[in-house]
Amino acid sequence: MGKNLKRVGILTGGGDCPGLNAVIRAVTKAAMGGGIEVVGIEDGYLGLIQNRMRVLNNEDVSNILTTGGTILGACNKSNPAAYSVPEGEGWVVRDVRDKVVEHYESAGLDAFVVIGGDGTMSSAVKLIERGLNIVGVPKTIDNDLWGTDITFGHDTAVQTAAEALDKVHTTASSHHRVMVVELMGRYAGWLALNAGLASGADVILIPEIAFDIERICSKCVERSKHGKRFTIIVAGEGAKPAGGELFVERVDDTSPDPIRLGGIAHYVAREVETRTGLESRSIVLGHIQRGGIPTPRDRLLATQFGFHAFELLQQRRFGRVVVEREGKIGSTPIADVADKIRTVPLDHVLIRSARAVGTYFGD
Amino acid sequence: MGKNLKRVGILTGGGDCPGLNAVIRAVTKAAMGGGIEVVGIEDGYLGLIQNRMRVLNNEDVSNILTTGGTILGACNKSNPAAYSVPEGEGWVVRDVRDKVVEHYESAGLDAFVVIGGDGTMSSAVKLIERGLNIVGVPKTIDNDLWGTDITFGHDTAVQTAAEALDKVHTTASSHHRVMVVELMGRYAGWLALNAGLASGADVILIPEIAFDIERICSKCVERSKHGKRFTIIVAGEGAKPAGGELFVERVDDTSPDPIRLGGIAHYVAREVETRTGLESRSIVLGHIQRGGIPTPRDRLLATQFGFHAFELLQQRRFGRVVVEREGKIGSTPIADVADKIRTVPLDHVLIRSARAVGTYFGD
Amino acid sequence: MGKNLKRVGILTGGGDCPGLNAVIRAVTKAAMGGGIEVVGIEDGYLGLIQNRMRVLNNEDVSNILTTGGTILGACNKSNPAAYSVPEGEGWVVRDVRDKVVEHYESAGLDAFVVIGGDGTMSSAVKLIERGLNIVGVPKTIDNDLWGTDITFGHDTAVQTAAEALDKVHTTASSHHRVMVVELMGRYAGWLALNAGLASGADVILIPEIAFDIERICSKCVERSKHGKRFTIIVAGEGAKPAGGELFVERVDDTSPDPIRLGGIAHYVAREVETRTGLESRSIVLGHIQRGGIPTPRDRLLATQFGFHAFELLQQRRFGRVVVEREGKIGSTPIADVADKIRTVPLDHVLIRSARAVGTYFGD
Amino acid sequence: MGKNLKRVGILTGGGDCPGLNAVIRAVTKAAMGGGIEVVGIEDGYLGLIQNRMRVLNNEDVSNILTTGGTILGACNKSNPAAYSVPEGEGWVVRDVRDKVVEHYESAGLDAFVVIGGDGTMSSAVKLIERGLNIVGVPKTIDNDLWGTDITFGHDTAVQTAAEALDKVHTTASSHHRVMVVELMGRYAGWLALNAGLASGADVILIPEIAFDIERICSKCVERSKHGKRFTIIVAGEGAKPAGGELFVERVDDTSPDPIRLGGIAHYVAREVETRTGLESRSIVLGHIQRGGIPTPRDRLLATQFGFHAFELLQQRRFGRVVVEREGKIGSTPIADVADKIRTVPLDHVLIRSARAVGTYFGD
Repeated sequence: MGKNLKRVGILTGGGDCPGLNAVIRAVTKAAMGGGIEVVGIEDGYLGLIQNRMRVLNNEDVSNILTTGGTILGACNKSNPAAYSVPEGEGWVVRDVRDKVVEHYESAGLDAFVVIGGDGTMSSAVKLIERGLNIVGVPKTIDNDLWGTDITFGHDTAVQTAAEALDKVHTTASSHHRVMVVELMGRYAGWLALNAGLASGADVILIPEIAFDIERICSKCVERSKHGKRFTIIVAGEGAKPAGGELFVERVDDTSPDPIRLGGIAHYVAREVETRTGLESRSIVLGHIQRGGIPTPRDRLLATQFGFHAFELLQQRRFGRVVVEREGKIGSTPIADVADKIRTVPLDHVLIRSARAVGTYFGD
Repeated sequence: MGKNLKRVGILTGGGDCPGLNAVIRAVTKAAMGGGIEVVGIEDGYLGLIQNRMRVLNNEDVSNILTTGGTILGACNKSNPAAYSVPEGEGWVVRDVRDKVVEHYESAGLDAFVVIGGDGTMSSAVKLIERGLNIVGVPKTIDNDLWGTDITFGHDTAVQTAAEALDKVHTTASSHHRVMVVELMGRYAGWLALNAGLASGADVILIPEIAFDIERICSKCVERSKHGKRFTIIVAGEGAKPAGGELFVERVDDTSPDPIRLGGIAHYVAREVETRTGLESRSIVLGHIQRGGIPTPRDRLLATQFGFHAFELLQQRRFGRVVVEREGKIGSTPIADVADKIRTVPLDHVLIRSARAVGTYFGD
Repeated sequence: MGKNLKRVGILTGGGDCPGLNAVIRAVTKAAMGGGIEVVGIEDGYLGLIQNRMRVLNNEDVSNILTTGGTILGACNKSNPAAYSVPEGEGWVVRDVRDKVVEHYESAGLDAFVVIGGDGTMSSAVKLIERGLNIVGVPKTIDNDLWGTDITFGHDTAVQTAAEALDKVHTTASSHHRVMVVELMGRYAGWLALNAGLASGADVILIPEIAFDIERICSKCVERSKHGKRFTIIVAGEGAKPAGGELFVERVDDTSPDPIRLGGIAHYVAREVETRTGLESRSIVLGHIQRGGIPTPRDRLLATQFGFHAFELLQQRRFGRVVVEREGKIGSTPIADVADKIRTVPLDHVLIRSARAVGTYFGD
Repeated sequence: MGKNLKRVGILTGGGDCPGLNAVIRAVTKAAMGGGIEVVGIEDGYLGLIQNRMRVLNNEDVSNILTTGGTILGACNKSNPAAYSVPEGEGWVVRDVRDKVVEHYESAGLDAFVVIGGDGTMSSAVKLIERGLNIVGVPKTIDNDLWGTDITFGHDTAVQTAAEALDKVHTTASSHHRVMVVELMGRYAGWLALNAGLASGADVILIPEIAFDIERICSKCVERSKHGKRFTIIVAGEGAKPAGGELFVERVDDTSPDPIRLGGIAHYVAREVETRTGLESRSIVLGHIQRGGIPTPRDRLLATQFGFHAFELLQQRRFGRVVVEREGKIGSTPIADVADKIRTVPLDHVLIRSARAVGTYFGD
């Protein structure tokens, strides 16, 4: 393998996230501008396992900057080091990295870019062990990837959630009601905190701060006594009561190790109504938080992340993942971010600001 | 009481609906322009029962055209002819129309406008029987009021729902999945049909067409075999299987006679996944469909409805409700529309268009 | 030519309009469902003149329902009966209908659909004279086509304009200022009237009502004296002062007979500032009114129009154009609508509603 | 004056900017939570000069988080150190700081917050010289304030501009055309660069990079030859040709020293059409870039800026302005930022990313 790259691949792993196509476009356009051919790998690692790839040209990446989804397809459950294959009546888990190495080599790839979350990065580490050249681009609407201050997709998810909360606000203000809205975010509170604070929620429940249901009830009653017609409670799907268990509803299939989340909104609404007599409703916003046209900010961030991924390729700085820290685009070893999550520090200025404007965290 | 009106009231009944404030503004500005004083009645009929009213001035109705909610407040459960009052440990239902007549007269009202759905109109009929002068303005996001081709609020709800479906579309297209999205609409399919057709849903389930779950499963499998990565199913909350019962989840509190709706999305998603093995997810969009800033079209419709309500007042054509039929604003007796709903005719051009572009109704 | 259609064409003429792709999709899907092949004609009539066509398949019309623009391309200046061709140093106008007939026949078309405005329909009439089977679908953001109460694209344009006006509103309210916003609409006031009324404009100038600049100035001064911080004036590009000429700025290239419009906003802002001393600004919204993702309502209308165009084809009712009148989809002879425009009747309920809520028309 | 604050003021200076109300709300809520009374000063420094102030209560700052404009009003031309007052037939400039000090003291203010751009900060410096306690919060949609990496309002402006560009994109793609869109941004290219890159503009002209009109023409012709149907050029209002003058159209009234900007779009469109024969159009987006509902991100940034302004007040760290640097909220002396602007560094990752994806800067 010579010094100069001739051909690189790109794949998108894990769940949907606005901005994926913007990264694909940036990597492809930058690479083609540098005389490097780009190969699109279909359906995440599955395309490497099943040898489904195609050369991307200018036409393929035209008019995709503003579109949601991924032109390459994605697949959550295809870690090559632990790949489920049918056997007899059931399934067995196999290490199919040999196949991946074979297809990587036969396709003439010098390296490839993986765009994904913690699960995708963990799988990448396992392939790096086998000598493959990989550059990572972090992706999650939850903003919980360790090592980077921000990920593309998060701004769009915050906007989708905040717009829904704005709508709930008008409904709630016409009727005397407690509205509980459950947002995504897995074990981190970034999405609930950002969307809740941006829309002026009265109570925000996040996984980082265990809540006391009795105190939330008191807060609702107190507001009602002070003539407030309504209380809006935003709950991250991973929020839990002090001493309590995580509620279980959604299986997070973007994680290689499925975690169970959700149910929190129904729980809180039911308890508040039962304990206080105040009419309460719950809304689970669900998958619409993952979709949609990326915000301009996410398109910009995704474009810069894609560009820097190309720079890392060019500089042969493999095994690294693009990050933004302290306002600057840079990189860090993939191994450092795999299987870790970044939660909201309790003294974060967002939390202190929220408390200062009267937001209650249920603690 | 002389020929010329001096003072009229206005109230908003039932659930939230984008455009309420635009009607209030139009009635108030038109009346003030005609030298008539307008009294805002708070929290629907409750304000008449409890004598809570205030004179509206120009300031009150400035800058409310584009806002959601209602500046007057609303209340679902305050039919004066059958009003629940606490007695002992429980509640008893009383006819408190005497009180309403008393407050109406002591406030010096010559007439008043009620903005509401079928429940609000039914209550109005009971007050007209007692000699009160009432003009109705129909209101429902469900577009199911008998006697009018369209109601304000519906366009905004369709837009909210269609935007959510557009987001679901991008997510679904990246993953192999069946997505079932439950929309409101009560016993009529207007909202599901309009939003589903506008967003290109593959299957639309509405109360007017009983569905066969087995055929829906076949449709999903067939699409999957033809290489389609996903199927999007839109279900009105009142949709039901042939020979089946309505699913029960939501109590519709905008109706005087609470009806039970919903649960359909979970049912369909579970059945499809179980019977076909295709990964399936459900989303219940919920109350965000009732909220938000009204679309320009709803602001226009609400303004024209409010204006015509004023014309009816001026012409002393009481006991009538504003409607739009065959593209024209007009009116019809309130008694004719109370307690009736308008469902989608099976030969409606929307249904025929939908079938022509390949939409499946599960029949 | 047998009774049953085997192959039909489709083209989009004139300027851009949200919803074009939704019509193309509806016609194509409905036709394919009926076993009829659809041929896409490129760049309006130019594709017929230059014989550029391609068969459309399911793939071509997938995922285009929600997109702006037209997948077929459009061309404003290609009336086959009067087509400009270069000759020597200049251009001469030729009748190239023979070529069109030749290409129509060699392509095996039984009929074709033209989607366009008054210019496109005029050209269609000239081709019908030569025996071609044509069905028209009206298209204009201006809503000024004679014979139909509404055209798709208009709702999206109203929404774009109203959203811009909402933004101007917040800016104006913070500063003491007169803001004049010029909207499109050609010789009809539909767009200015609908967007202006929907956003609560103080003054609306439309071509149908000649304005008196001195009275507009008085209105601004009067508002200022009453403590109103601002006045928002919406002007249709075709509005003109009593006894005055049309202002000239924009050449409307969607018309076969280019008309000159615009300049009105600069004129009004300059006059108001000069005559009253009130700080005044003008904004010309321009081409963004023609673009963008169609609103759900426009997607629905375009789908129904496309479906009915297919029905007309099937029924061999050629020479007709789809319309919506009195709330119903139907059709009328193309010859009746060509070269005519529909302006706002002075006693329209929109104008009466607008006056009732205090809107001033400058008369 | 004791150690603990009892009463603080707040004013908004300069032009409109989405997020002003979110800052006012955050400062007021945080202060009231700390037992400090907040006085709203009307119409910027004018309220201090004319002694127009009112105590803000919880009601005043409810429901303003998501609204555009400023509840306090703003005024561009009221620098107390150089205030224009009428004298005889004309105007004279006076130093009215004595009056401001008098009103500040009679109102019992311990300090006040000024929210504004470089002009507002310059005026603040002149009042600090007279012993007033001031904390600044930077505000500009242009993002050009020295000392901070980001200002609230910019994200909303980028979104408004990018949405307009997205609409232009669809129109342009249907017709063969060069579209030139002029955005705000004064002498800095942030707005044009961010919105242009986010929407995939082909050419971006910013004040930091002098352009060569001949090369832009070549670019347009080259694209046309390669089958591209259109070219979209985004121009910051302060962009200028190499060796050329700034074009003159708009007086920037948010600056104490009015600067003249604009006209660039008309110039570029005219030159391209004349020199290449390609049909070209220009759009000047104008004041709608300053208005509208703030994006969730701007609401969050404004809330954090307001909260930190309160912290600075509490800590009696007067004479400082809130900034965000390297991803962290902090502060810097007001004197350091007054009258300075921050332009785009030529090696900024945004510019390098843009070049890598094929954006042309006209150089």
